[in-house]
Amino acid sequence: MARARSEERRAEILRAALEVIAERGYRGASLASVAERVGLTQQGLLHYFPTKEALLVAVLEERDQWDTGGAGLSPAAWRLDLLASLVDYNAMRPGVVQTFSALLGESVTDEHPAKDFFTQRYALVREGVAGALRAEYGERLPGGLTPEQAAPLLVAVMDGLQYQWLLDPGSVDMPGAFRDFLSLLRPE
Amino acid sequence: MARARSEERRAEILRAALEVIAERGYRGASLASVAERVGLTQQGLLHYFPTKEALLVAVLEERDQWDTGGAGLSPAAWRLDLLASLVDYNAMRPGVVQTFSALLGESVTDEHPAKDFFTQRYALVREGVAGALRAEYGERLPGGLTPEQAAPLLVAVMDGLQYQWLLDPGSVDMPGAFRDFLSLLRPE
Repeated sequence: MARARSEERRAEILRAALEVIAERGYRGASLASVAERVGLTQQGLLHYFPTKEALLVAVLEERDQWDTGGAGLSPAAWRLDLLASLVDYNAMRPGVVQTFSALLGESVTDEHPAKDFFTQRYALVREGVAGALRAEYGERLPGGLTPEQAAPLLVAVMDGLQYQWLLDPGSVDMPGAFRDFLSLLRPE
Repeated sequence: MARARSEERRAEILRAALEVIAERGYRGASLASVAERVGLTQQGLLHYFPTKEALLVAVLEERDQWDTGGAGLSPAAWRLDLLASLVDYNAMRPGVVQTFSALLGESVTDEHPAKDFFTQRYALVREGVAGALRAEYGERLPGGLTPEQAAPLLVAVMDGLQYQWLLDPGSVDMPGAFRDFLSLLRPE
């Protein structure tokens, strides 16, 4: 019972952190503002997450767990139709996309605590996407590209479209544009 | 003479701001740290740029002026081979790419002073890229895409590759990957 309540509280804190980061970025976010949003003191919050960095990494990991139904980013889990569905889904949750995009942007500044997370995540994601492209289209894609050459492009399109869409949702049809990109990769 | 010295000082401040933003992001950057880097007091700096926002917008505008040889982002100035050269050039100046990428990431957080700049810039860039694609490849691109459908994808690839490259330059060949993408757009 106490354990269930504690789990619930933890989930509540992660949701609040997601909101605060979407609004202010990680560097602009404070533990105090997260604590306030869930009715805890800062001391109380530190009981669940001992540092701001620990809270950040938990937010990022939690998102990947949700998005993969708990499977994590293991290379075997990737499929192109699931990626297209993920982009559809993202278009309905700008707050999560905003948090992720703000953190990715910050992660390239010096000594950012999410830098290692993103570096490792992208290596895994490129590997998974290359596998999905190979399973679907074989060794040779249009333009003579290999699945390994196309994978970073697919990942870049997903990320880059998120910025254009967040800035100007009325001008950029993110799910439609992602499907346009997939049609470029489909062999004749 | 005094005017030349003042222009020089202004350029020096913009370079320092570029460095500080690359290191800390805009929200993490302070006018005091920029002033210190060029040997000015904060009061002295405010003589050149009255607010932090004004300095930020000047940094962003200065970069586009440099990159276009003073032509700005007018739609007629875009060509695909120049875009490929720009990506080659960017691969030699990680500091500038880092500043731009960090700012783009932050710009999607609430009420960020660079949000309008990026929103307007992307509308112009998509228009210019669509024109360049039409001039080079005509109305019909692979996958049945129009130049207007392909333009946001090209822009997304440029931005997205910058993040992957900044995080892990040893694993991502940014200029090579961008050329791979162009080969997807080339009609048979």
